[in-house]
Amino acid sequence: METTKYELTPEGELRNRLHRFQFRLLDKKAEGALICQNADLFYFSGTIQRSFLFVPAQNDPILMTQKDYDRARRESKLKTVLPLKAVSDIPSLLRDNGCSEITRLGLELDVIPANLYVRLRELFPQAEWVDVSSEIRETRMIKSPFEIQQMKRAAAICAETMANAQRVIREGMTEIELESKLIALGRKRSHHGFMRMRGWNQEMHYGHVLSGESGIVSSFLESPTGGTGPSPATGQGASFARIKRDTPISIDLCFGVNGYIADHARTFVIGNLPRPLTDDYQKLLEVKHVFAEMAKPGVGSSDLYKAVLEKVRLEHLEDHFMGYGNEKTSFIGHGLGLEVDELPVLSPRSSHTLEEGMVFTLEPRLKYPGIGVIGFEDDYVVTASGVERITTTEDGIIAV
Amino acid sequence: METTKYELTPEGELRNRLHRFQFRLLDKKAEGALICQNADLFYFSGTIQRSFLFVPAQNDPILMTQKDYDRARRESKLKTVLPLKAVSDIPSLLRDNGCSEITRLGLELDVIPANLYVRLRELFPQAEWVDVSSEIRETRMIKSPFEIQQMKRAAAICAETMANAQRVIREGMTEIELESKLIALGRKRSHHGFMRMRGWNQEMHYGHVLSGESGIVSSFLESPTGGTGPSPATGQGASFARIKRDTPISIDLCFGVNGYIADHARTFVIGNLPRPLTDDYQKLLEVKHVFAEMAKPGVGSSDLYKAVLEKVRLEHLEDHFMGYGNEKTSFIGHGLGLEVDELPVLSPRSSHTLEEGMVFTLEPRLKYPGIGVIGFEDDYVVTASGVERITTTEDGIIAV
Repeated sequence: METTKYELTPEGELRNRLHRFQFRLLDKKAEGALICQNADLFYFSGTIQRSFLFVPAQNDPILMTQKDYDRARRESKLKTVLPLKAVSDIPSLLRDNGCSEITRLGLELDVIPANLYVRLRELFPQAEWVDVSSEIRETRMIKSPFEIQQMKRAAAICAETMANAQRVIREGMTEIELESKLIALGRKRSHHGFMRMRGWNQEMHYGHVLSGESGIVSSFLESPTGGTGPSPATGQGASFARIKRDTPISIDLCFGVNGYIADHARTFVIGNLPRPLTDDYQKLLEVKHVFAEMAKPGVGSSDLYKAVLEKVRLEHLEDHFMGYGNEKTSFIGHGLGLEVDELPVLSPRSSHTLEEGMVFTLEPRLKYPGIGVIGFEDDYVVTASGVERITTTEDGIIAV
Repeated sequence: METTKYELTPEGELRNRLHRFQFRLLDKKAEGALICQNADLFYFSGTIQRSFLFVPAQNDPILMTQKDYDRARRESKLKTVLPLKAVSDIPSLLRDNGCSEITRLGLELDVIPANLYVRLRELFPQAEWVDVSSEIRETRMIKSPFEIQQMKRAAAICAETMANAQRVIREGMTEIELESKLIALGRKRSHHGFMRMRGWNQEMHYGHVLSGESGIVSSFLESPTGGTGPSPATGQGASFARIKRDTPISIDLCFGVNGYIADHARTFVIGNLPRPLTDDYQKLLEVKHVFAEMAKPGVGSSDLYKAVLEKVRLEHLEDHFMGYGNEKTSFIGHGLGLEVDELPVLSPRSSHTLEEGMVFTLEPRLKYPGIGVIGFEDDYVVTASGVERITTTEDGIIAV
């Protein structure tokens, strides 16, 4: 069986991640954390085989695996990987491995199901439980060169998909047919098949391929675009609407490599867009320049948001920016990594300060009633002195 | 915008579902339930717009929607759809609409995040909370003719994909390339893009396209097959392994229409399989006949499992059935609907009795060390007198 491309997370990566998280645990005065959500588990152990990872604040972690144990041992570079028969065995397994008398323990309270939470409380009756989801998310917020490398590979798939889109778009095809051709390319290139989102009930399959008025249909999703989707059961993304001439086509797709996601959008058109839209698009690129000039370590994420909004007002784009009327998205970009809704968020209420290694999107959009959406989405890594764009498609509306 | 295919859940459907659930609430002595997980929300309200649905044990339900409210009103045929600003407004909104003094309230404790559970407890300090996830799952277990119709449409996409697979399989292509072509077809036909799974940390994108030894790689997933996937980050499904001659290729794919999933598998081969495998496959079809003869209303799901296992032993297939050695899957089929892991489960510990309207899979598999997996998966509806198969691909190994 070919496994050459089956890459494991290097040991040094795991060590560094755990180290940074352990500092935060000490700050939180927790003796350790019990981690079990797939994305977090993969980040700290290199495997998503069904496990609980105990991370003590000051010692080596213990990975306890229910299924598949042999596979977890092969995939994880952690030293201690133990078989776990049942959740109820966790306390004794920890005790047998030197972790007794735990009185304050962290959990991913933002994602673990209520029943599991109740059960763990019963298993550790003496322990006080604290939510360490912010600590985990803030640890994961700073990417290593290894992680950035994965995201650049994912961004390359995104760029290839955009180039491909230009070739396959045809007048009269449905949005969903267009999307099906694009996701097939991405999947073949190693796209892992779905996007992990952390937010409760937030779901993302491929992204949004929306033409004309589909682009202004908002949804349950925390996202600048929604779309109708094929049915109310999924309620987002491509629908059976047919692609028309002289109408904006928004292609916003996510692809992932080794778990790491890139998220990229461009506006396409068969024929021409009305003059106000093409003018506004140029202004939106000016807005992007303000962002790219200002973004660097030390800048507050909300200050960046405010500076972008100020430029939007200067360019007289505010009536369309991120929606119109009462329906406006309250952020212009979001962190990316193993999940598509990571930190930092570029919003007015965000409290993070840019640091080297952060990766986030900038996704300014303009929505026009009765017409659709134009705009773009690019992914940026914060470097020592500014930001580096990792999505490589050229700027501008793409004519088909 | 074309919306002809955008079908809403009929009002009578919702009424019937709520009615059946309300009986169970009364049994549980709960005054109502607060439902918010996407699949449950869609089932009882017809929309997944971000909402809390209050279902009183004896009155009309109230849908409280945060985002997108206008869309929820368009999509849901429920009479009372109210805008909800914040979760903290739920108690007053219910009080204003005649639902006061709630002392025992049901929640989906198997899926809602711990933080949300804690928050709801704070908002209703006087209430006792009970887990109604079994009541919801058992209500959803019995499908209406409308629901079965959706699943037949999904099954038709599955069958079309299998026919297509026969045309596109080539020696030397990667599993993931083959899968990319198949999912593109499904997506174009309306596949909604991902499979909802209820189980914690269980994930499913398209299904599993596995060749040769990939077919015997087990994973974290509660599923007869796992596969390596493109990386440990997803750890299941198609990999970069190349498809070889005279080796079993297992194509197991799920597609969905209007939220409802069909799940279908066949074994393909370029050239020929070794004689013992083809003989065993024929015996597996005999096992299926035992299942199809016995399955009818009134039969216990565990009795059905046991009868199948007895036939497996009679045919001397037990060394390979559902795995070998210590790694054997403990069920031979599972319920299907809005989620891919519904009730009933055909397992030795299952306690359900077959009823008209249940829909489940039968997925017998034989695994051979060093070779791979053979078998099939079909979907069945329980009728008044037996079962009707809704997946339509002919039986037998498919030669390419």
